[in-house]
Amino acid sequence: MTSRRRLLAGGAAVAGLGVAGGAAVAATTGRDAPAPVAAAVALTTGTATVPFHGPRQAGIAEDPPAHASFVAFTLPAGADRRALARMMRLLTDDARRLTQGVPALGDTDATLAVLPARLTVTFGFGPGLYRAAGLEPPVTDLPTFKIDRLERRWSGGDLLLQICADDPLTVAHTQRMLIKDTRPFASVRWVQQGFRRSPGVQAPEHTQRNVLGQMDGTANPRGAEIEPAVWNQDGSTQLVVRRIRAEIETWDILAVADKENAVGRRLESGAPLSGTQERDEPDFAKLDASGLPAMPDFSHVTRARVTDPAMKILRRPYNYDGAPNAAGHPDSGLIFASYQRDIAQQYVPIQQRLADKDLLNEWITPIGSAVFAVPPGCDEDGWIGEQVLA
Amino acid sequence: MTSRRRLLAGGAAVAGLGVAGGAAVAATTGRDAPAPVAAAVALTTGTATVPFHGPRQAGIAEDPPAHASFVAFTLPAGADRRALARMMRLLTDDARRLTQGVPALGDTDATLAVLPARLTVTFGFGPGLYRAAGLEPPVTDLPTFKIDRLERRWSGGDLLLQICADDPLTVAHTQRMLIKDTRPFASVRWVQQGFRRSPGVQAPEHTQRNVLGQMDGTANPRGAEIEPAVWNQDGSTQLVVRRIRAEIETWDILAVADKENAVGRRLESGAPLSGTQERDEPDFAKLDASGLPAMPDFSHVTRARVTDPAMKILRRPYNYDGAPNAAGHPDSGLIFASYQRDIAQQYVPIQQRLADKDLLNEWITPIGSAVFAVPPGCDEDGWIGEQVLA
Ligand code: HEM
Ligand code: HEM
Repeated sequence: MTSRRRLLAGGAAVAGLGVAGGAAVAATTGRDAPAPVAAAVALTTGTATVPFHGPRQAGIAEDPPAHASFVAFTLPAGADRRALARMMRLLTDDARRLTQGVPALGDTDATLAVLPARLTVTFGFGPGLYRAAGLEPPVTDLPTFKIDRLERRWSGGDLLLQICADDPLTVAHTQRMLIKDTRPFASVRWVQQGFRRSPGVQAPEHTQRNVLGQMDGTANPRGAEIEPAVWNQDGSTQLVVRRIRAEIETWDILAVADKENAVGRRLESGAPLSGTQERDEPDFAKLDASGLPAMPDFSHVTRARVTDPAMKILRRPYNYDGAPNAAGHPDSGLIFASYQRDIAQQYVPIQQRLADKDLLNEWITPIGSAVFAVPPGCDEDGWIGEQVLA
Repeated sequence: MTSRRRLLAGGAAVAGLGVAGGAAVAATTGRDAPAPVAAAVALTTGTATVPFHGPRQAGIAEDPPAHASFVAFTLPAGADRRALARMMRLLTDDARRLTQGVPALGDTDATLAVLPARLTVTFGFGPGLYRAAGLEPPVTDLPTFKIDRLERRWSGGDLLLQICADDPLTVAHTQRMLIKDTRPFASVRWVQQGFRRSPGVQAPEHTQRNVLGQMDGTANPRGAEIEPAVWNQDGSTQLVVRRIRAEIETWDILAVADKENAVGRRLESGAPLSGTQERDEPDFAKLDASGLPAMPDFSHVTRARVTDPAMKILRRPYNYDGAPNAAGHPDSGLIFASYQRDIAQQYVPIQQRLADKDLLNEWITPIGSAVFAVPPGCDEDGWIGEQVLA
């Protein structure tokens, strides 16, 4: 403990570089070429940090940064609790350093550690990790839904790192350093890289659009509403990651009105079809001019709606956009991530309703799926997973 | 001409949405939820535009935005000059609209067009396009260098779109719309997506680091130095795109001093090994304490150096970071793009010297290569390529 704490305090003496973390920041933000005022304002994007320590893990309730990498690992046969605890100690130590702009222990590219840009590292434990540790898993794989076209290469995982930052180079460096920590203990199962709007492109409180052009996030719990939906008493929560392909080719030939009916909201304003403003509450009883429900019975919003604050989910999706094929068809969609206290109680019923009937299903296809228990946060002397593995 | 001009002016009436471009911007930047002052400052990132029209194409001399997609196309056998002209007219029309935050003609996701974030679209013509048009190509494939391990999937191309913006969703949408324009005429050959620091992470005038942790761009021509290196009299230039894999695993185990010798510059400060500040001119005559040249004879900088301003190249590289393999080895490197008046005169001699001897070669491997002639810009009534294809 003491030696680790000393090492943390001594983040100053970076392996082989001999510069203070603070000085390094100054050097990389234009010490010799003073920045004009506008740039000085913007420069807080690179140096901004999110606290790592606390009763709950970071990277969940905060506004999602612009870039994310979800990295899932497979444990080898015979992995045991002691090895897992060792791995989580290493990972925690480096995550607590990197998120504060301090190079990892033995960071081989320490110059890339100094601009954290709101970096968070969030750890999730898959069912297999609990089994390896001889414990009953608190999460189980989702039931099979008839809409699923799951591919193994995007599914499952014993350990998950959700790495988020407002800068893609920071995400790449963090991913590289943390994967090194896992090498003696686990192999990479899949990696999914996603994006949202760049910092400064939209006001943080504004609902962003996704690759389908929809405002995505309007009805998400915010502020105090997050509490009952997401956090268990002990600071733990649970995470679902679904890779959902968007069928862009057929979506793109739809008329705007059809796109709006599928979701139950206007494309331009994000308003429910029963109202005029994005924040208007949908009125499911309201009839339109032809006497039909203004909110179609099978619209995504109608089907996904939950009123009990304790049964909502916190969606934290990222867009993905891979290389189109030779015919020019996009490989695009959402890395749909949602946090909730209890997947079985909260997520599964919503997903079941959507799988049974949701107009949007014609244009979205789940191709990957994974579930993780997200252990509580830790303090300066602790490590993520200590309640489970110590 | 008239009808196109009318259509452009009428960007207001967006297919199926019936909103003015300007109004759409207002709606997506928080009209109903007024942003605090700090956000208002930052919001210029999303609405910033780069002029499309002019004697030279955009996307070359400007500071590179954070995200880029390089999309190369193959023409079918039998493509002719008339068809190519038609394709370039369509592409130009949509590029001039999208770069100004106006949806493409028949934009199927018009809501994604309103935040251009310094979007530029730059067109390059490969040797095959000239041959298809019955013309002598002004560029020829690079000679084979002994360091090359070129893969077909990252090489060649008859047409190139370099799409750059400060926002990844804008790049994705622009790519999708422009690929549609090409469908009747060409197929996608390869797509390479890259990144630099997010907007606001570093002052624009500050040299960014690449995935190897090096400051990359220090000796690049800037301001008036760009003129003699890049622009021909007629507004044309030439582009090399090389995909260069970084051998991260072996790079990472190098001592800092060895990394510095390979490049000839300090890792932390970017200063030449003969000096102390990033902007110090390298002194190739200076000897170190042991009587050896301070700038190693075979360092990357020593070998790449060019003094004649008309023989320099303008490097505009992007980082790439794909999914690591199961063992956790990164798939990382540079999409090395450079602009110069004449590839044969300027690029080839530098690349030949580097291929012959460059300490850095042990940690970088060219796996893709393509060359393009970049035609001049155009005015409101013109189209890119008119000098070649009209
Ligand atoms: C590619 C896949 C998906 C897309 C494009 C999508 C899109 C949307 C959109 C545009 C909205 C309306 C605006 C908002 O409140 O955010 C919405 C709402 C919602 N979605 Fe999805 N969604 C997807 C998948 C899912 C999945 C897998 C779930 C959960 C199983 C889900 C649950 C919800 C919920 C709970 C709401 C809020 C409903 C309300 O109370 O108004 N969505 N989604
Ligand atoms: C992954 C591949 C490469 C890496 C990591 C790399 C890295 C660097 C670095 C760190 C510098 C010193 C700082 C600077 O002036 O920017 C530099 C300089 C330079 N590089 Fe590269 N480079 C790569 C490939 C190339 C290629 C393919 C060429 C051209 C054939 C090239 C041409 C140059 C030139 C002309 C300079 C400036 C030299 C001077 O005048 O000081 N580089 N490069």
